[in-house]
Amino acid sequence: MALKTSRRAAIDPFIVMEVMRAANERAAEGGDILHMEVGQPSTPAPRKVLEAAKQALDSHLIGYTDALGLPALRQRIAQHYRDFYGADVPASRIAVTTGSSGGFLLSFLAAFDPGDRVALAMPGYPCYRHILTALGLEPVLIETHAATKFQPTIADLDRIEGRLDGLIIASPSNPVGAVLPAAELTAIAEWCATKGVRLVSDEIYHGITFGAPASTAARLEGAIVINSFSKYFSMTGWRLGWMVLPEDLVKPVERLAQNFFISAPALSQLAGIAAFDAHDELQGNVARYGKNREILLNDLPAAGFDNLITTDGAFYIYANVARLTNDSLDFCRRMLSETGVAATPGIDFDPARGRHFMRFCFSGATADMVEAARRLKEWRK
Amino acid sequence: MALKTSRRAAIDPFIVMEVMRAANERAAEGGDILHMEVGQPSTPAPRKVLEAAKQALDSHLIGYTDALGLPALRQRIAQHYRDFYGADVPASRIAVTTGSSGGFLLSFLAAFDPGDRVALAMPGYPCYRHILTALGLEPVLIETHAATKFQPTIADLDRIEGRLDGLIIASPSNPVGAVLPAAELTAIAEWCATKGVRLVSDEIYHGITFGAPASTAARLEGAIVINSFSKYFSMTGWRLGWMVLPEDLVKPVERLAQNFFISAPALSQLAGIAAFDAHDELQGNVARYGKNREILLNDLPAAGFDNLITTDGAFYIYANVARLTNDSLDFCRRMLSETGVAATPGIDFDPARGRHFMRFCFSGATADMVEAARRLKEWRK
Repeated sequence: MALKTSRRAAIDPFIVMEVMRAANERAAEGGDILHMEVGQPSTPAPRKVLEAAKQALDSHLIGYTDALGLPALRQRIAQHYRDFYGADVPASRIAVTTGSSGGFLLSFLAAFDPGDRVALAMPGYPCYRHILTALGLEPVLIETHAATKFQPTIADLDRIEGRLDGLIIASPSNPVGAVLPAAELTAIAEWCATKGVRLVSDEIYHGITFGAPASTAARLEGAIVINSFSKYFSMTGWRLGWMVLPEDLVKPVERLAQNFFISAPALSQLAGIAAFDAHDELQGNVARYGKNREILLNDLPAAGFDNLITTDGAFYIYANVARLTNDSLDFCRRMLSETGVAATPGIDFDPARGRHFMRFCFSGATADMVEAARRLKEWRK
Repeated sequence: MALKTSRRAAIDPFIVMEVMRAANERAAEGGDILHMEVGQPSTPAPRKVLEAAKQALDSHLIGYTDALGLPALRQRIAQHYRDFYGADVPASRIAVTTGSSGGFLLSFLAAFDPGDRVALAMPGYPCYRHILTALGLEPVLIETHAATKFQPTIADLDRIEGRLDGLIIASPSNPVGAVLPAAELTAIAEWCATKGVRLVSDEIYHGITFGAPASTAARLEGAIVINSFSKYFSMTGWRLGWMVLPEDLVKPVERLAQNFFISAPALSQLAGIAAFDAHDELQGNVARYGKNREILLNDLPAAGFDNLITTDGAFYIYANVARLTNDSLDFCRRMLSETGVAATPGIDFDPARGRHFMRFCFSGATADMVEAARRLKEWRK
């Protein structure tokens, strides 16, 4: 008898991963590729983390840890909330996760049941809606606009029809890099509290801002905060993240984590403690992102990318390319093939309107940004 | 308005993780604890793996990998099937996962939809049924018996009432360590193929056997194989595993992996390649497990644990303790408190009958096995 594959596996791919593979294949064939597709720092983990990892390899078993993480790491993250935000978050509310990916799975499973409706902004990180769908939850897409840098507003939330169980926000956002002002974040949290909607605040780009720092939802009643070592801390492949949980979700998340993960990678946890002592090196990365951002905001318009949303954080520029193409996927393929510059089509972030948008990631070397802008100007001449 | 936690988070904890925490707390207070609760080798990763990890820290970015894993690692795992089983498995069917835990999540999501019914043996690895339940699948429990070393038989399968969509088998099994003979595995796979039931073969304890090696389902049409670097390869905290997928599930699993994990830990992948060149060291571990097994099978009966199921593989002894207690959870707590020997109550593996069983893990040092047996004999005197 024929075996089936599940209906829920019929989610979309995470297209940026497919672009990365195409770019890597081209590079393996000798192509001179400039990677502006995947949202990952071009730097390794901070030196102190690499040193701590080597020490752990010599001295630790690298076995399972508590499902919620090594107590020393949970303490260090709690300290980070005091140092960075002046917020008092007890270590007991910190859950160490396998990247922010692990945080999304655990928080969605802990807070929502099949059929529940969870709102999120379009454009947005594509995995939110794909994970929700695969878990039997209904993504409620909020169409956002350039006037609010594609962040949802209270008016947008008020317009949502039908029951709502959850809301995901991201600040700085992906693919736009827009920071929600503190007052706006608080207003959204209050709206959620009033309506009985669970707020999930994706804070993975905190630390990478070019103006005022981003505000955390860790202080706000009932909110789940998701964060990671991948972006500011420059540790993507280490697959390490954390959540700040409201009290009522600590036990449910612990049970789910025991069963779904056993624990996050132990070597990453042992080494990750040192990441919080590496701000000097990490601030150097952020300064470079700032320089790269200036270069692209200055140079891309001359290459025909003249409708850019000015970013406040993260390391992305979301470009409206409606003047250049009606099919951003095809456009990105041609651009990769003809210039070696890899970028991500907007359809990954916004299936409805993304064919008119694309995302450039400027986490690479500054020389690569200069070269990419040069090639694109040449190409569009 | 009050926020809810999900109904599906109301799964049971993975009790062994709670026993581990209790044992660790006792050890932190200065207690002399013998760990026989958690199923993890007491050895670190092989020397060649540690060496490869240090080299990778010096030379690699440790960034995201392809969602299905580093091509070099997938190739090396395919080679392992030729070397170890004489089986021809193309690298394209290998998916590298975040431990076997990641493999269970991905395979259950890819093969089953909410409401689907998946059979599994009781006693068995508790996370199977907890993950199934949290994903909206229905675990169909097969009550197995000592006469077949608690492995399900074709007769057991024939007795299942109602529709069936999947079957999970484990060989060597946990908590019993029973190996399914090759003919029996093939018969089960044929039964599944005839009935349109997706077979999931958990082969995480392959390589740790005390008689004939265990047979793989990687050759069998339609079956999903789940394996890991945690047990034979002694790399629990590295959170690295793999699946062998039937062709029809490769694309669905890739899409799910991109969205749910992005990739498995990159440093573990880079270092894990070297694990397949470390058989000399790893066979030394297996020899020690064999010795430990002998000691416990000889000495435990004198401590009153006289109804043991003789194990063929893995590093567990499942003991029927009905003569000693009606409440294995309480018994294990008292044993930990009065002797410092940590073991796992059977209720983790078999909620219905587990109160009469417990599991000893013999992956530790041989001296610890001798000492545990001595303490238990003293205790039960």
